[in-house]
Amino acid sequence: MELSILNNINEPSDLKSLSKDELNLLSSEIRNVLIKKVSSTGGHFGPNLGMVEATIALHYVFNSPVDKFVYDVSHQTYPHKILTGRKEAFINPEKFGTVAGYTSPKESEHDFFTIGHTSTSISLACGLAKGRDVKGGNENIVAIIGDGSLSGGEAYEGLNNAAVLGSNIIILVNDNDMSIAENHGGLYQNLALLRETEGKAENNFFKTLGLDYYFIKDGNNLELLIEIFEKVKNIDHPVVIHMQTIKGKGYEDAEVNKESFHWVMPFDLETKEPLVKFESSESYTDITGKFLLEKARKDKSIVAINAATPGIVGVNPIRYELKDQYVDVGIAEEHAIALASGIAKRGGKPVVSFLSSFIQRTYDQLSQDLAINNNPALIMVHGGGITASDVTHLGVFDIPLISNIPNIIYLAPTTKEEYIAMMEWGIEQDKHPVAIRVPRMNVVSTGDMVKADFSELNKYVKVEDGNEVAILGLGSFYHLGAKVHERLKEIGINATLINPRFITGVDEELLTSLLDNHKVVITLEDGVLDGGFGEMISRFYSDKDIRVLNFGATKEFTDSVSLEELYKRYHLTKDLIIADIKKVLEDIKL
Amino acid sequence: MELSILNNINEPSDLKSLSKDELNLLSSEIRNVLIKKVSSTGGHFGPNLGMVEATIALHYVFNSPVDKFVYDVSHQTYPHKILTGRKEAFINPEKFGTVAGYTSPKESEHDFFTIGHTSTSISLACGLAKGRDVKGGNENIVAIIGDGSLSGGEAYEGLNNAAVLGSNIIILVNDNDMSIAENHGGLYQNLALLRETEGKAENNFFKTLGLDYYFIKDGNNLELLIEIFEKVKNIDHPVVIHMQTIKGKGYEDAEVNKESFHWVMPFDLETKEPLVKFESSESYTDITGKFLLEKARKDKSIVAINAATPGIVGVNPIRYELKDQYVDVGIAEEHAIALASGIAKRGGKPVVSFLSSFIQRTYDQLSQDLAINNNPALIMVHGGGITASDVTHLGVFDIPLISNIPNIIYLAPTTKEEYIAMMEWGIEQDKHPVAIRVPRMNVVSTGDMVKADFSELNKYVKVEDGNEVAILGLGSFYHLGAKVHERLKEIGINATLINPRFITGVDEELLTSLLDNHKVVITLEDGVLDGGFGEMISRFYSDKDIRVLNFGATKEFTDSVSLEELYKRYHLTKDLIIADIKKVLEDIKL
Repeated sequence: MELSILNNINEPSDLKSLSKDELNLLSSEIRNVLIKKVSSTGGHFGPNLGMVEATIALHYVFNSPVDKFVYDVSHQTYPHKILTGRKEAFINPEKFGTVAGYTSPKESEHDFFTIGHTSTSISLACGLAKGRDVKGGNENIVAIIGDGSLSGGEAYEGLNNAAVLGSNIIILVNDNDMSIAENHGGLYQNLALLRETEGKAENNFFKTLGLDYYFIKDGNNLELLIEIFEKVKNIDHPVVIHMQTIKGKGYEDAEVNKESFHWVMPFDLETKEPLVKFESSESYTDITGKFLLEKARKDKSIVAINAATPGIVGVNPIRYELKDQYVDVGIAEEHAIALASGIAKRGGKPVVSFLSSFIQRTYDQLSQDLAINNNPALIMVHGGGITASDVTHLGVFDIPLISNIPNIIYLAPTTKEEYIAMMEWGIEQDKHPVAIRVPRMNVVSTGDMVKADFSELNKYVKVEDGNEVAILGLGSFYHLGAKVHERLKEIGINATLINPRFITGVDEELLTSLLDNHKVVITLEDGVLDGGFGEMISRFYSDKDIRVLNFGATKEFTDSVSLEELYKRYHLTKDLIIADIKKVLEDIKL
Repeated sequence: MELSILNNINEPSDLKSLSKDELNLLSSEIRNVLIKKVSSTGGHFGPNLGMVEATIALHYVFNSPVDKFVYDVSHQTYPHKILTGRKEAFINPEKFGTVAGYTSPKESEHDFFTIGHTSTSISLACGLAKGRDVKGGNENIVAIIGDGSLSGGEAYEGLNNAAVLGSNIIILVNDNDMSIAENHGGLYQNLALLRETEGKAENNFFKTLGLDYYFIKDGNNLELLIEIFEKVKNIDHPVVIHMQTIKGKGYEDAEVNKESFHWVMPFDLETKEPLVKFESSESYTDITGKFLLEKARKDKSIVAINAATPGIVGVNPIRYELKDQYVDVGIAEEHAIALASGIAKRGGKPVVSFLSSFIQRTYDQLSQDLAINNNPALIMVHGGGITASDVTHLGVFDIPLISNIPNIIYLAPTTKEEYIAMMEWGIEQDKHPVAIRVPRMNVVSTGDMVKADFSELNKYVKVEDGNEVAILGLGSFYHLGAKVHERLKEIGINATLINPRFITGVDEELLTSLLDNHKVVITLEDGVLDGGFGEMISRFYSDKDIRVLNFGATKEFTDSVSLEELYKRYHLTKDLIIADIKKVLEDIKL
């Protein structure tokens, strides 16, 4: 790959001396680098291709890191990383993986925040601007946000407050007419109108919020971008630049299939075949999608709700077939929960599906809009558990978040059959908000039908009746518990094995009965220990004569740490658990 | 008081036969009832007075409860309650207090949700509308929301999604040009423009979101209201009615002093003197306000941030004197946290002040925008603890919410001096986000200076060194712990008394040392036990030979239950705690 210009770009200041032709050549080179690298490793594809020219223009006109760029959600930051000293991670296959998929102050002085959730950039940029104003400074603060992210309430709060900041803040709206999937919401009619009228329509969302406004018809045109950026540089008041770009620009398939090329798995550029073949075995996402579709076909009062991520939460089957029973709210998780509460109140059967990491955006709605009103919505929590994920998408916090809110019943299935039974019951019951922690691991199917009745709350299931040691294996970790049980048997301990099923409460009768002939209770949960299931069990036993060992994750933000390393760190392997059990049994004998 | 019309109104259908003159007379009667009742008991004053005519018109035109009204935040629901069978609670002093201050489905079939947080009505109404559409029905769904509440992200998400609902939903915006305090944000320029142009301005916030729009110039004019409501009744698409009203209408002082008459303490209508005299002793709110003002005068990089409730979180002194160092974000708590993170990143010193109940709106921002980035913002949590509050403003959930997020240091001061030292350190330190749980009880002052250094994290303070029983009294409940300590001494137990200071971590060294000569550890916390401080201590000790008793609130939504009753229920009195300690000590002997 010929990189005659990029080879000489090591920091943004190297751009300043380039001619317009050289800048355009640089765009091509960066685009080629991106296509080659991301097709090989996987990652955000379309969003980065669309932002190549704008990123070059930003760094050409402004003076980073004195002038400060805040990229929303970080899906579009690869060109920025390439221009700010991190190009090797995109050019040199040996260095692939040395930079994160999002902005990170640890990586570069050109990054100001670690960001992976949407709709936050304007508010964070307002903070940098206000900090500048009180500390004394005159740099430009630029927030870069996609049209999809504008559907989130935090982005609106940011715009509304940016408008009255009274000093320099530049909000670059990258409008590619797409979220991850298509956009949803009335706002997008106005963005379309503004694109059609080249920003001239009187009725203008940004202007109604009191913001100055520029429109860039072709946000992949370097000359145009530079002209406008020069115009707003050092502006003394808040301004929005509404820039129209093409998502996936420069790679035809990505320009056409915008949703599937938003984020890609590794693929061969020649054959377009995936480089990584997955076993085509059934996943819990498939099971979810199939079950919900079949159920919704028969019951027209079921409404599947998601927030801009239909594919990964298993609602595509409903999305494509039953449009009246499908709502994508955009990146508006708060609205989704309140909507579900209202639907349930009116007798409908709402099923809201989120990733664990994004349910964090709805604590107050879970509590106030839903739980206080005790409306029977079903909430599906996908991706919960300890993962090798980046720091902004960890799935370990949903148990403390959800399970300490009164009235919500949070269930942890251990098998396919139990999962389906819980969905069935969750949809049909009419007494409580119910949440289900969708298993993340390989599908376990026993073939045994599980009755769809969980109305006797907090009733744990004793699967193996033993003594001395009792194992409470929650959800996905039930199977780890079963392995520990098996190993204990081999060393002469006939342990009790329990599937708690309910995260949100204690089976007092069962737990009390264990006191008779058990010395140690262990809890296993696929999440952070602090505020979680195990602590609830520890509290139950804390004034009684029995020892409890809680296994789960430590309260910490991990960042792309391998699962193997995390399991070792948290003693979440059969052998480490056995060793801990032995230790406490010996301690009791002393 | 002459109530010639109201006397005959027992349900909304009784309105239908009234003449326009009678309806106007009814307005006067309701207004008189409100002024007399609320001045006598305290409560929301201005918001209800402004909504008298609109509420009558709503019930005159629509057919509640088949047609459904959803009132945002419930500050304006007294006229609705008066017209829907609950007038006795406003007319008859013996019945005062028999209805809640917010809508409640338990009270009336005309109320659909228990609501006390802002900005939720549109989303909840969308749910009722979507439920109607999938279930089959043709009733009108009406959300009633104040201009102040429009500053919250959830309201925007609601508007944006309501616009694409494709069926009947009516959003009545009650624009009285006020939040609790003045409005903040660019939106309010547009609302002002719309008021000035009587809704005719081309640039229209609601229209940019794709919503149909009507303007009512005088929302206190019954004829005008009825005319427009008749027009939109049974409309087949989403519509906004933007109605201008006068907050406090009909009570001159309230019309003039809108902020102080938003919510009033009981006062004498003749003399205008307060009916309840408070001792003028110092409060923690006063201490906060005084400290922050003095500190901010000397350090121009301090920025005090709050979300539309400056009075109750002690930032009025800064608000009135140091405008450049004061930000009211409107009802936009999410923005407030991200803003603070950005200010801290740029070297400023942000202090965000919320009520415990409202910090619930910011879990994801605390986690993603702040804690992952580990920026040194200070967050003041007011009103945390067990209270006799209504169900929508409970202060018991902030400990599980905040303290299970990594990186945040959550502190619990026990005295005025310790509180000031924590604020001082929290502002000056530059390593972590710090939160302080502002004490809610009477001010305790020892006069002893506390060093403003909490950099040795999770270091508890052993105040009394004893044996057999150790008491960990967290924050406000330290003083309850001291009473228990004293009583134990009287019965021959020389207990250890500890002030943990840190909610978010364990002093392993100190707790381990207790194992030598203690049999029982008790924890006392002014919040829900589930996911809280005590559980963390129970987990620490769970595999060790010591008993732990956790005292705090049960996981439940309580609704205006007296503090006395709650303390009894949760064993949070000296005598009940002593009894529990005795019981476990006896159990150990057996």
